[in-house]
Amino acid sequence: MAKVKKQPRPKALPPKGFRDYFGEDVTARKSMLDAIAAVYHQYGFEALETPAVETVEALGKFLPDVERPNEGVFAWLEEDKDWLALRYDLTAPLARVFAQHRNDLPTPYRRFAMGPVWRNEKPGPGRYRQFYQCDADTVGAASMAADAEMCAMLADTLEKVGIDRGDYIIRVNNRKVLEGVLEAVAEAVVQRPDEPPDFYDNMSEWQANILRTIDKFDKVGEIGVRELLGDGRRDASGAYIDGIGLEPAQVEPVIAFLTSKGANNTATLANLSAAVGSSEVGMEGVRELEQIAKLLTAQGYGPDRIEIDPSVVRGLGYYTGPVYEAELTFEITDDKGRKQQFGSVAGGGRYDDLVKRFTGQAVPATGVSIGVDRLLAALQAKGRMSSKSVGPVVVTVMDRDRMADYQTMVAKLRKAGIRAEVYLGNPKNFGNQLKYADKRNSPVAVIQGGDELERDVVQIKDLILGAKIAENATLEEWKSLPSQYEVPRGDLVTKVREIIALHEAD
Amino acid sequence: MAKVKKQPRPKALPPKGFRDYFGEDVTARKSMLDAIAAVYHQYGFEALETPAVETVEALGKFLPDVERPNEGVFAWLEEDKDWLALRYDLTAPLARVFAQHRNDLPTPYRRFAMGPVWRNEKPGPGRYRQFYQCDADTVGAASMAADAEMCAMLADTLEKVGIDRGDYIIRVNNRKVLEGVLEAVAEAVVQRPDEPPDFYDNMSEWQANILRTIDKFDKVGEIGVRELLGDGRRDASGAYIDGIGLEPAQVEPVIAFLTSKGANNTATLANLSAAVGSSEVGMEGVRELEQIAKLLTAQGYGPDRIEIDPSVVRGLGYYTGPVYEAELTFEITDDKGRKQQFGSVAGGGRYDDLVKRFTGQAVPATGVSIGVDRLLAALQAKGRMSSKSVGPVVVTVMDRDRMADYQTMVAKLRKAGIRAEVYLGNPKNFGNQLKYADKRNSPVAVIQGGDELERDVVQIKDLILGAKIAENATLEEWKSLPSQYEVPRGDLVTKVREIIALHEAD
Repeated sequence: MAKVKKQPRPKALPPKGFRDYFGEDVTARKSMLDAIAAVYHQYGFEALETPAVETVEALGKFLPDVERPNEGVFAWLEEDKDWLALRYDLTAPLARVFAQHRNDLPTPYRRFAMGPVWRNEKPGPGRYRQFYQCDADTVGAASMAADAEMCAMLADTLEKVGIDRGDYIIRVNNRKVLEGVLEAVAEAVVQRPDEPPDFYDNMSEWQANILRTIDKFDKVGEIGVRELLGDGRRDASGAYIDGIGLEPAQVEPVIAFLTSKGANNTATLANLSAAVGSSEVGMEGVRELEQIAKLLTAQGYGPDRIEIDPSVVRGLGYYTGPVYEAELTFEITDDKGRKQQFGSVAGGGRYDDLVKRFTGQAVPATGVSIGVDRLLAALQAKGRMSSKSVGPVVVTVMDRDRMADYQTMVAKLRKAGIRAEVYLGNPKNFGNQLKYADKRNSPVAVIQGGDELERDVVQIKDLILGAKIAENATLEEWKSLPSQYEVPRGDLVTKVREIIALHEAD
Repeated sequence: MAKVKKQPRPKALPPKGFRDYFGEDVTARKSMLDAIAAVYHQYGFEALETPAVETVEALGKFLPDVERPNEGVFAWLEEDKDWLALRYDLTAPLARVFAQHRNDLPTPYRRFAMGPVWRNEKPGPGRYRQFYQCDADTVGAASMAADAEMCAMLADTLEKVGIDRGDYIIRVNNRKVLEGVLEAVAEAVVQRPDEPPDFYDNMSEWQANILRTIDKFDKVGEIGVRELLGDGRRDASGAYIDGIGLEPAQVEPVIAFLTSKGANNTATLANLSAAVGSSEVGMEGVRELEQIAKLLTAQGYGPDRIEIDPSVVRGLGYYTGPVYEAELTFEITDDKGRKQQFGSVAGGGRYDDLVKRFTGQAVPATGVSIGVDRLLAALQAKGRMSSKSVGPVVVTVMDRDRMADYQTMVAKLRKAGIRAEVYLGNPKNFGNQLKYADKRNSPVAVIQGGDELERDVVQIKDLILGAKIAENATLEEWKSLPSQYEVPRGDLVTKVREIIALHEAD
């Protein structure tokens, strides 16, 4: 091995786009994921944990002609000439696992998975290169009951973690309906005199163009999509964006599809039927949505929770059948005091070609992925997650030689279920000990110096009340609200518990 | 981007040395880690989650002259010329975090961390390249009270997860005592006539040789270490291993150190005092052990749980002060019926130069790491973890058109807290539905065909009893132990609950 050169000191920073999570940030996410896992488990889903590292080949990003596989993943060449990569989602590893173990796993295989994924993308504000995903998928079930179950489970999950009914809506759409619409568009072809006759030869490219345009519906609305499907559009910056050149007659079915949401599911389904015309696949898609709506209604999931909504376009290009998305409907106030809709926190759909890459056989699958960070932020905005944890009781050190004694006090507090610790820094400066307790957000400090030892008492300082008094109190209040108590040592646990209970009730 | 060549089908396998965890494997580990986290939290430790990826520079493996950094880590060169790597432990990221945030973090900073780490090593049986670590560290506390606390917390943790008192022992040693012994060895130098006078010029190399030899004490015992410190040793395979060439007079202090464990801590400490002679650092080490022993005794952690034991050598080369190790003392029977000691499940110690690489300043720190997989295996061996979970109740599908009805049954069961699901595969073959329930380890299957619907009843099949009967029962028993019940549909939840409760009591 080469000799180590003398190095300058390393920078104490994580790589760009990566971050640390401290204390409550870790435990709040954990408790949310625990609640989600409990619902998934109740629904019969089994946990699966795959490694962070997969072969690039299994992930499906293998491009043999380029030096480095797809830019979107973190990948490296191992010495044995294998390209390895960090997983970029939890679905690709599920496909690998199902293909590998399909003879041993129960079918349908219901599994959930939670964990970090990595994207080798340009980081930005609030945009990290490692983040959590939380997925549930049912592999091997062609029945629409599996899709309906996903929607119902998603509703139950949101309510379980603390999103009230009425504060969210789950919208369902179907890629097959859109395909029916595309067939209707193709039928509406009117040859332009100046276009070559093979204008629509490449159907898949032509469909991809329409899909990409539809994807902008959320941003540019109906008029924008009309323009982009047709001749083009001047955007807010003044730049002109070319349209994809559909005839006006061809634009109509697409717009009919996107705006077909009616007063209720029945009305919506009737509009969709009209939009797909006689297209086989389109009618199949409408029937699938009908089944999902029927199953959910029978179980009491009404349109206050789940509805058919053809304006849901996210993922329509990726999925092969039903598509669903959960949106939070309450407003939050952003940093600048502006009100904003919270927006999407989960989405999913049916993708029937999951395992085909590995086995050659199509396996029907449907699944949902929760945006962990967004949902957590929503819960915090709703005050459903305390953003600051209560720190430990701090037993201060007045006499270095009596450390064992202080640790015995701490042990008693812990045995009583109270989070507690002895101050382990240099005890010389007592002010530092109280500053430490403050930084830890401690509710209580315990003090026993030589004088207190002689009288077998302890001083118990209510730090929360103390802080409040220091902030707001008048002299009168300050006198009438003592924040420090002297109690017999035997009453240590009782008094500390009393103070903590007092503030919990605040 | 280059064009994608037509590829053969990818192999459905994880990379070599990586594995998947299914169902109970995931939840058992999670519940153990939850229990550990609860103890750490109670002790005042805060959670910290750092990213999986660090710069190689921050991890401290940067070797600029070689194509690829240290073989032990998974590392890759990013396009912006940064070497990134997967963390190989949780301590190096802690050092980076503390250096980065030292002005904002409370000092002492007590943190715990749990998560996967990665080693780019040759995989072997039971040896994976991704595994869990679970660490607690106190940074910024020079006091031996911090080390004593680690030992106490480790004892509490082991008992909390299900290792009974008496089934484990935590052993404490001290690197400084060993250093004192090395000084005593140096003083015992007798110049050999055939050695150049600068034989001991390179003290650090010489000490490193002794440390490496001591490290083999666990394997080769006292006699083996004597030989390896002296002229050499013929190992079991017949190969001769060169010794490091100490004089017999120099070997004695080392052996005295390793074998100085007495009948109790007081006796051990007296033996250690003798072994270090007049060495300053050695005496300091003995005093530190004395303090730890005193603190632990005062808190009631007697030698049945924690003891001074100078034969603990693992980590002595790495740590700078006290070193501790938790060993499970019960025997397990291995695959081949042989009894074996379970051995070490956790270890740690003091390392006072953690942050120095980054800041130039030494910061005292002490910490412990639990071998998650080993501890989990121990709990499973002790029957403390169920190795097979109970699957969901499966509501079978007799009539495809009544899916909504079956899902309503499932929803009722779930609402009653019972894990349940409807069969989502192709319902045509009823036998497949029961095979599925069997594979899921379901306790109960629910059946309602047209006949039962007419009479408003359901069939409830006790699958656990059914399996038992199928295995063992005589015809008489088979008749007297019905495993299928017909109940009014309104009694569905009650009857299912009754059957599950029956088997839980088994």
